[in-house]
Amino acid sequence: MIREAIVTTRSLSGEPHLAPMGATVVEGGYILQPFRPSRTLENLAATRIAVINFTDDVRIFAGCVVGKRVQVDVSKATHIDCPRLADALSHDEVTVESAEDDPRRPKFFCKTYHSEGHRRFEGMNRAKAAVLEAAVLVSRLGMLSDEKIDQEMAYLAIAVEKTAGPEELEAWGWMVEAIAEFRQKRAS
Amino acid sequence: MIREAIVTTRSLSGEPHLAPMGATVVEGGYILQPFRPSRTLENLAATRIAVINFTDDVRIFAGCVVGKRVQVDVSKATHIDCPRLADALSHDEVTVESAEDDPRRPKFFCKTYHSEGHRRFEGMNRAKAAVLEAAVLVSRLGMLSDEKIDQEMAYLAIAVEKTAGPEELEAWGWMVEAIAEFRQKRAS
Repeated sequence: MIREAIVTTRSLSGEPHLAPMGATVVEGGYILQPFRPSRTLENLAATRIAVINFTDDVRIFAGCVVGKRVQVDVSKATHIDCPRLADALSHDEVTVESAEDDPRRPKFFCKTYHSEGHRRFEGMNRAKAAVLEAAVLVSRLGMLSDEKIDQEMAYLAIAVEKTAGPEELEAWGWMVEAIAEFRQKRAS
Repeated sequence: MIREAIVTTRSLSGEPHLAPMGATVVEGGYILQPFRPSRTLENLAATRIAVINFTDDVRIFAGCVVGKRVQVDVSKATHIDCPRLADALSHDEVTVESAEDDPRRPKFFCKTYHSEGHRRFEGMNRAKAAVLEAAVLVSRLGMLSDEKIDQEMAYLAIAVEKTAGPEELEAWGWMVEAIAEFRQKRAS
């Protein structure tokens, strides 16, 4: 099972980094597979620690995909010297137990060292899920046909119109813009 | 904003009932709009109390839609004499403040009397969202074309294949079966 997480890491010099990532749930921890090259990959290899943050604020996922500066506060994790999302609903502090190299996506086997819950979950929301799916589409703009993108965005838009709050509408707007910008650039 | 909830109510004689429902978030509470006729509607009108349960166990949502007996434990709410899901991630206990009649979907304005968190949220999951969307499709089988259903199920299946755990696969299977059964019945 893959949980959608915001993975926070730091460089050796202490600079925090955050990245949205699917974390594969395994006994006692997670497998993380950051793309090569990426800051998360460098940081994991250098420090062997990370925080897996769970949030349903989809602006963070959507903002990362389009390089939008979303206001995200980080604080220090409880047991490891690593940043975590200050407003996550929950987080897991992990250490890298072993790694498996790969030319495209190396695998890091991470052991959960400490788990914490912060705020209560207030229910699934179809618009949040739709924004996440749109973010997946946007991250693959060069690989999918316009027709497929339009068809899937039209389908996702239904849940957004019916169930979104202001945060989801904002993030959805970024996804719609990103698709339009991609097409404009390609045409020019 | 609409949060997907399992609403638990009871009859005057104390029989518990649970129903998946979109709960519209408003200042201080929720608007619930159960269909007429329904047990939730009867119970809300008679007792003026309910519990809005938040869970990401999509087997409960999917199971309710197809009338599958999913093992769901209920316990007594903390401050009102109403059942709640024993394993919810969180719940809100509400009282009906006012109601607005409607021939199709009466509106109940519910005030949150007490909020509780139980278990920590462990991350969004694309397969859970896909099962929820499939459940929406299944609940509208008579209203949508086969082509539209097939197209959307094919799209949703991608996230299920990539990110589901055993619970999501089980619930997804029920949705696939429900569509096949509907078509068989219609053909015979």
